[in-house]
Amino acid sequence: MSSNPCLASVVAEIADEVGRMTERGDVARYIPELAHVDPRQFGMVVVDADGRVFAAGDSDTPFSIQSISKVFTLTMALGMIGDRLWQRVGREPSGNPFNSIVQLELERGVPRNPFINAGAIAVTDVIVASHQPREAIGEILRFLQSLAADRRIVIDKTVADSEKRTGFRNTALANYMKSFGVIERPVEFTLGVYFHQCAIAMSCRQLATAARYLAFGGADPATGRAVVTSERARRINALMLTCGHYDGSGDFAYKVGLPGKSGVGGGIIAVAPNTASIAVWSPGLDRAGNSLLGQFALERLVKRTGWSIFGP
Amino acid sequence: MSSNPCLASVVAEIADEVGRMTERGDVARYIPELAHVDPRQFGMVVVDADGRVFAAGDSDTPFSIQSISKVFTLTMALGMIGDRLWQRVGREPSGNPFNSIVQLELERGVPRNPFINAGAIAVTDVIVASHQPREAIGEILRFLQSLAADRRIVIDKTVADSEKRTGFRNTALANYMKSFGVIERPVEFTLGVYFHQCAIAMSCRQLATAARYLAFGGADPATGRAVVTSERARRINALMLTCGHYDGSGDFAYKVGLPGKSGVGGGIIAVAPNTASIAVWSPGLDRAGNSLLGQFALERLVKRTGWSIFGP
Amino acid sequence: MSSNPCLASVVAEIADEVGRMTERGDVARYIPELAHVDPRQFGMVVVDADGRVFAAGDSDTPFSIQSISKVFTLTMALGMIGDRLWQRVGREPSGNPFNSIVQLELERGVPRNPFINAGAIAVTDVIVASHQPREAIGEILRFLQSLAADRRIVIDKTVADSEKRTGFRNTALANYMKSFGVIERPVEFTLGVYFHQCAIAMSCRQLATAARYLAFGGADPATGRAVVTSERARRINALMLTCGHYDGSGDFAYKVGLPGKSGVGGGIIAVAPNTASIAVWSPGLDRAGNSLLGQFALERLVKRTGWSIFGP
Amino acid sequence: MSSNPCLASVVAEIADEVGRMTERGDVARYIPELAHVDPRQFGMVVVDADGRVFAAGDSDTPFSIQSISKVFTLTMALGMIGDRLWQRVGREPSGNPFNSIVQLELERGVPRNPFINAGAIAVTDVIVASHQPREAIGEILRFLQSLAADRRIVIDKTVADSEKRTGFRNTALANYMKSFGVIERPVEFTLGVYFHQCAIAMSCRQLATAARYLAFGGADPATGRAVVTSERARRINALMLTCGHYDGSGDFAYKVGLPGKSGVGGGIIAVAPNTASIAVWSPGLDRAGNSLLGQFALERLVKRTGWSIFGP
Repeated sequence: MSSNPCLASVVAEIADEVGRMTERGDVARYIPELAHVDPRQFGMVVVDADGRVFAAGDSDTPFSIQSISKVFTLTMALGMIGDRLWQRVGREPSGNPFNSIVQLELERGVPRNPFINAGAIAVTDVIVASHQPREAIGEILRFLQSLAADRRIVIDKTVADSEKRTGFRNTALANYMKSFGVIERPVEFTLGVYFHQCAIAMSCRQLATAARYLAFGGADPATGRAVVTSERARRINALMLTCGHYDGSGDFAYKVGLPGKSGVGGGIIAVAPNTASIAVWSPGLDRAGNSLLGQFALERLVKRTGWSIFGP
Repeated sequence: MSSNPCLASVVAEIADEVGRMTERGDVARYIPELAHVDPRQFGMVVVDADGRVFAAGDSDTPFSIQSISKVFTLTMALGMIGDRLWQRVGREPSGNPFNSIVQLELERGVPRNPFINAGAIAVTDVIVASHQPREAIGEILRFLQSLAADRRIVIDKTVADSEKRTGFRNTALANYMKSFGVIERPVEFTLGVYFHQCAIAMSCRQLATAARYLAFGGADPATGRAVVTSERARRINALMLTCGHYDGSGDFAYKVGLPGKSGVGGGIIAVAPNTASIAVWSPGLDRAGNSLLGQFALERLVKRTGWSIFGP
Repeated sequence: MSSNPCLASVVAEIADEVGRMTERGDVARYIPELAHVDPRQFGMVVVDADGRVFAAGDSDTPFSIQSISKVFTLTMALGMIGDRLWQRVGREPSGNPFNSIVQLELERGVPRNPFINAGAIAVTDVIVASHQPREAIGEILRFLQSLAADRRIVIDKTVADSEKRTGFRNTALANYMKSFGVIERPVEFTLGVYFHQCAIAMSCRQLATAARYLAFGGADPATGRAVVTSERARRINALMLTCGHYDGSGDFAYKVGLPGKSGVGGGIIAVAPNTASIAVWSPGLDRAGNSLLGQFALERLVKRTGWSIFGP
Repeated sequence: MSSNPCLASVVAEIADEVGRMTERGDVARYIPELAHVDPRQFGMVVVDADGRVFAAGDSDTPFSIQSISKVFTLTMALGMIGDRLWQRVGREPSGNPFNSIVQLELERGVPRNPFINAGAIAVTDVIVASHQPREAIGEILRFLQSLAADRRIVIDKTVADSEKRTGFRNTALANYMKSFGVIERPVEFTLGVYFHQCAIAMSCRQLATAARYLAFGGADPATGRAVVTSERARRINALMLTCGHYDGSGDFAYKVGLPGKSGVGGGIIAVAPNTASIAVWSPGLDRAGNSLLGQFALERLVKRTGWSIFGP
């Protein structure tokens, strides 16, 4: 894969094209903070191997990263306990909606993968470990600030409170796992942290920067600083490819062909290994809960650049 | 990704390493023809972009390709009716064993993807179309002979008969889909063809050659002859990555990092886009039904060559 | 429970009341023979302990007994192999539609009870045993003729052919059980018999007479001839109460309070232990597949007579 | 059904027979208070239509009534909101273990019946209504004291605390229903009451007396005081018959043939309509969670008395 000289114009043209789309999907409605986001917004940022940033649209507007946070907490938990994590979470696609509880019953409380809600809660439980919830939240936030090289990243407390107030299904999942011993810490500790990590607000620019280590063998190519080993970066990418988009993961692989992770806030991060990290954002979602125009933008980008990991 | 100068020695060393392994998995037991295969056999073939063939072990021994045939019938069916195929088969990982019928009930007879048994039977039904079963079987066989450039590929009639005699679960799946109108031809026609395609016998050399179009943008780089468009090749690769190894697909992506498809005969094909097509074979299976040593060999190959699609 | 002196007028009044109902449910549509039945028909017959027959409406019109046949084949199979039957069929309510295949997968091919389709097919397989299908069909028919004391009962061949032609889901169920060894005879034998037993045509008068042994301790009180032991009669009644009306069994127990069995032809048999056997028929079904007006008539009958087994 | 003159000796003989049994099942282990109960205990009480009490064994020893409480809270909730209850709870057998969450997902949070845990929690939510939890607990306790005509009935606080401390699965169920709006009150209120109702301690004598209204048309035959209408008593009996014994309900109907309700404390209440109310207790459970010897004793009782509701 070669870096593309006209990436600037490709990104600009995609933003233009997206701006002309009339069908934009529906914003998430389960909390008011997401329901009231203006669906006409769109942002896109590509960071290449040389650290050049190609941005378009609302690329500096912070939005709720929601499930995108699961990639970063997975990275942290693997750093803490390594492959022992896989005793508590599986690595297989779920074939079920993101908040399904059926699979948990059939598989005795072990979630299928770290990107469905149950799996992400189990991952967060690892991070909480011996910490108080407040400290764990602080660690997650600092990790993201460091990756994005931007101290201004914050948690939207209103979103976190809404998540908690309406989070009955996640509370059910956590208690259910607790009944099987998969959650070790008090349920309210782990959920408290989980609701806060989902409420982190970041812009496309911050997210694309933060995801660089996944595209470039585990290290930031600008500084050379290693976040994870190259093997671990590949494996996180593999998980994003097979499980990163809820029950639309197969479709995303089929159409876009890049490892990626979406959130119900409308954001998606994606990586073209060796080549670029990418973040897109548009609040309207498709039926599977993935940003409709975000996917469209990535599909166009891959078509124009030939970055699909599945061939020329 | 660069072609590897010492590929010959890499392949030879992996075969050596495999030869020293004592844990070899269990051969499939559901029909006598598979139960009686000698589990000590191992073959491996890599074909690179220049058409050079690197072989080791029992690379010319034909074995039952079983579910590997699903990749080639999918290719044929897409050639016949294009994206209309996706009205009858999904593109999402199943999160269930290969012969599960639960998902079919919940999703009104539409199988999750073309690589679980139900999905492959629906794909075969497309190929049968207006043909008599015998003609459809002939077409599939000729397609494989042409891809492998080898007219000696045959169907093992004893295996086909055994498959049919014991194929009650596949018969259940086909009738179940028929009850929803997903199977259009008489069930016994479609199943007759399906049981024969599973019984095709090929060697690693033949399979690695036949899979070249998937590695090289849809065309055989030696002859330039296009089998499918490059977009279609990418998409078949994406499906292999997310769904190619039954309920071990996530694990295969995580550990090997190449699109691939396994069969209960112990064979696996895999592709390194732009770089190589690969076939391995060892009859012993792991719990998910994938060749234990075949996976091990591929994991070693990717480690040595850096061919993972998920990064350096 | 005391026999009711004005049973004649009660039955007549219920028939009147039913005649004034406008909402009659929908006839079964899966085969033309059922789809074309006139939904305005209604029949009702009560036979008391002294053998007196109280009839109203279309009480001598034969209709397709469908799943009501399952009670009689269960009686036959228990007579043949006794409690060994319960190694192949369970005795628990299913909590699923009558033709669900999900439960079969979770419980390794053993159907939950003899009144869901899978269970009834497994019961029929016991009856086929060493017989040829034709002989088994003959035995079932003669058993019903003997119970009803009426040699004119026949099988509607057109219905049997339609059942077979459209019976893909039952074929799926049978093959699925065969894959677990729960079906012992060739699938086509067992299904052939099953499709014919469903196609038996009987009137309310014949059914109410045939069901007498269940109401009166296993024997016909008129002749004293024992069909089953009193313990077995009680147990068949228990199964009818818990499982006799598909996914409406709980509701039937709640509203009517008598052991009974319905069929998609619109018939229902019910028994008031020690007191009476009852048959009603009206072709329109509710959502769960049970005769809408048949249930209404039984509810009225129990209200008027106090025959509920659940108390005064 | 006739009252049995030698009931005293029947009960005594059954207690003798039970005393000689060596296989006694396993006591519930999920909380220490139940795990440490002496499994050799057995009590049995029958109260006939004339109010005569026939007792044997540990008939005055209080034990944890657990799920038996569900019958009495159902009676209370029906008294409060009548048939509107059925908008929030179904009336069909579940075909699943008592604490399954799968069914809740498939049916959008509406539990199948009031006797699985989810259903009982939804029923308790109705009782909590505008009350504070403490008041609701008091009402339930007073209702039982009044039915049993015994003010000494209390809640075992240690059991209630253990239930709460280990009740992750019930917390999951309650939160899951809350996410669908089926639970209206704060989850911790409703669960607090639920955990206390399960921890009520009663003896066989108290329970058999409390259940009299179900056997005798909704009223206590001694005092004539009506608890519910006779129709409602019949309907509660119907629910006990179809759903009263978890996933062993069909088996209990088949073998015992009386409406009844069991609890994991080892108690079972049963009613012979018009004839008697019964309570048995033995802490050892079978696989489905029902008292092994309690069921045995009831089976013997019905065999000796002919009280089965399913015929002579």
